[in-house]
Amino acid sequence: VRRLRDVGEHAWIARFVRDLSSQRRGARIVVGPGDDAAVVRPGRRALLLTTDTLIENVHFRAGWVSPAALGRRAFRVSVSDLAAMGGGPTFALLAIEAPPRLAVGHLDALVRGFRAAAGASGAALVGGNLTAGSHLAITVALLGEAPGRIVTRAGGRAGDALYVTGTIGGAGLAVRRLRAGRRGRLPDPPLRLRAGRELAPFAHAMIDVSDGLVQDVGHLCRASGVAAELEAASLPLALGCRRALGQAALTFAATAGEDYELVVAVPPRREHLAARLSPRLGCRLSRVGRLVAGRPGVRLRDAAGRVLALPRDGFDHFT
Amino acid sequence: VRRLRDVGEHAWIARFVRDLSSQRRGARIVVGPGDDAAVVRPGRRALLLTTDTLIENVHFRAGWVSPAALGRRAFRVSVSDLAAMGGGPTFALLAIEAPPRLAVGHLDALVRGFRAAAGASGAALVGGNLTAGSHLAITVALLGEAPGRIVTRAGGRAGDALYVTGTIGGAGLAVRRLRAGRRGRLPDPPLRLRAGRELAPFAHAMIDVSDGLVQDVGHLCRASGVAAELEAASLPLALGCRRALGQAALTFAATAGEDYELVVAVPPRREHLAARLSPRLGCRLSRVGRLVAGRPGVRLRDAAGRVLALPRDGFDHFT
Repeated sequence: VRRLRDVGEHAWIARFVRDLSSQRRGARIVVGPGDDAAVVRPGRRALLLTTDTLIENVHFRAGWVSPAALGRRAFRVSVSDLAAMGGGPTFALLAIEAPPRLAVGHLDALVRGFRAAAGASGAALVGGNLTAGSHLAITVALLGEAPGRIVTRAGGRAGDALYVTGTIGGAGLAVRRLRAGRRGRLPDPPLRLRAGRELAPFAHAMIDVSDGLVQDVGHLCRASGVAAELEAASLPLALGCRRALGQAALTFAATAGEDYELVVAVPPRREHLAARLSPRLGCRLSRVGRLVAGRPGVRLRDAAGRVLALPRDGFDHFT
Repeated sequence: VRRLRDVGEHAWIARFVRDLSSQRRGARIVVGPGDDAAVVRPGRRALLLTTDTLIENVHFRAGWVSPAALGRRAFRVSVSDLAAMGGGPTFALLAIEAPPRLAVGHLDALVRGFRAAAGASGAALVGGNLTAGSHLAITVALLGEAPGRIVTRAGGRAGDALYVTGTIGGAGLAVRRLRAGRRGRLPDPPLRLRAGRELAPFAHAMIDVSDGLVQDVGHLCRASGVAAELEAASLPLALGCRRALGQAALTFAATAGEDYELVVAVPPRREHLAARLSPRLGCRLSRVGRLVAGRPGVRLRDAAGRVLALPRDGFDHFT
C-alpha cells in the first residue's frame, strides 16, 4: 500500500491537478486548480457561500463509510445548506487534513467520490488544500446560486405550516448501531437540491436538519421570532426506527440529527400548492406542525396534545 | 475559565453571529452569517477562490502565537494566495475545529484577530463552521477579486527576471528556535496585497513563498515550462539569519518556508518599471535570479557560479 508519506503532499497534488485539468473547462472557470487561487466567473446572480467540516471520530469512524462515500458525504452535507436556501452549488473548494499513514488510494477514492457528487450536481471542484494531521478531516467550501428566491431561516411567521422532506431518524439509528459495534454503513445523506428549488417559491423560511429536527427548527424559530408546535404522530420516521426503538422512536428521530432533510415553513394560503408539488420533489413531503406566536422554542406534542419531554434538542459538538 | 464544553457549539455560534450582525452590512452582503449559507453580491469581475488550513502541532504550537495573532495569521496565509495573483479578498469563510477544553476567550480572540485582519484588508467574514476535534485547526476559504490583470504561475518565460518581495528566512529561523525550546513568537506573515497589485501589470507569473523559495519557484517553473537560476548572494535574508546560521544561512533561507513573500517573473523590457515601483510596494523588491530555458527545476548558484547542494527544496507535509 502506498501511503501519503511515501508520495508527499506536492507530488499528490501535482498528480491530482493533472487529473483535474483533463476535465472540460467551462467558460466560467478561468483558472482551474493548481495555481495560487482559482478564478471563476459566476453568473449575475447573488452568490451563496457555505462551509462545513467532517472529522474522523467525530462525524464518522473508519469503516463506517467507504472512502468514495465519505467524499460524496462531505459534498452532500455542505450542499444541504445551499438546498435549504433554494440554491444549488456552482464551485467547490476541498481542504483535507490527513495522517501520513493514510493510503494514497483511500485519498484518491475520497476525492473521486467528492468530484463525482459535485459533478452530478453541476458543481466544479476548483481548488483545495492538503495538509498533514493526526486524523482525517475534510472541510468543504461551496459557492452556489439560486435560480429564484433565496429563502433564509428568518422569514417564518405564526400560522405557517411546517413541512419536512423525506424521512428522519434513519441516519441517527445507523450511527447508534455502528457505535454499538454492529456492522453496517452510514447511509448516504439525501440530496434535496430539487426539493429546495421547488419549495423555495412557496416558503417563508427553510433550514436543513443536520443536528436534529427539534434543534434545527429551534434555529428557524429564533431567526424568525416565533415558536413551533410539532406533532409527534406526523413525523415521517425512517424505516426500521419504530421496530428498533418502539415507543422511543419518535423522540429519538426528532433529536438524532444527520438527516440532511429540509424543514420548510409554508404560509396557509400556499399549503395546497406545496402539497401539489410533492410528486415533483423526488421525496415525501410531510406536514409535521406549525409555527405559532410566542417565545422562540419548539414543543413536540403527542396525539393527545401532551408535550413530550426530550432528553436533548439535538447534537452539540461541545456539550 | 469558561471552556467550549461549558458553552456549547450552538450557544457560541449564536453569540458570535449576534456580534457579527452589529457590523455594518454593505450592499454586497445580502445574507450575513447565521443562516444556512451566506449570500453575497460580488462585483462584475472574475472571482478568485482559495482555501488554506493551519493545524496545531503542524503549523504552530500553543504558545508560539497569541490567539489573536493566530487568527490574523490564518487570514494572512490565505490572502497571500490572492496577492500572488494580483488580487485581494472580498469575502471570507472560517471553519474551526477546536477541542472542548479550549477556553472560549481563546476562540473569541482568535476570531477577533481574524476579523480585524480581514476588515483591514477590505474583506468581510460572512460564514463559518465550528466543530469539535482533538486539536485546533483553522480552515479559511477566501473569495477575492483582482482590480486588473490576474497573474498565474504559468506565464513565466525564459529570460524573465525573478524578483522577491521583502525578506526570506525570518519565519523559518523563528520556527527553528521555537522548536528548539527557545522562547519567542512566530512573526506575523507579511501582507503583500499592495505589492501583488502593483506588480501584476508587469509580471509574467507570480507565486507566494509558503513552503520554501526553491520549492515554490519550482512550482512556477513547472507551471511555466521553464527552469530557474537563483543567485544565492542576491537573496534578501531576514535580519539575524546570517548571524544565527553563518554559512548555512543562504541555503536555509532558500528552503525554510513560511515567508509568504511574493516571487515575480518580470520580462526584461519591463525590469526598469518594476525597479521603479519598489518605493510604492511597502517592502523591498530584490532581483534574485532569472528563468532560463530547460527542464523545469531550480538551481541555486553561489557567487562563483557553482550550484549549491540543497538538503531539500522546501516543506512537504508528508515526506
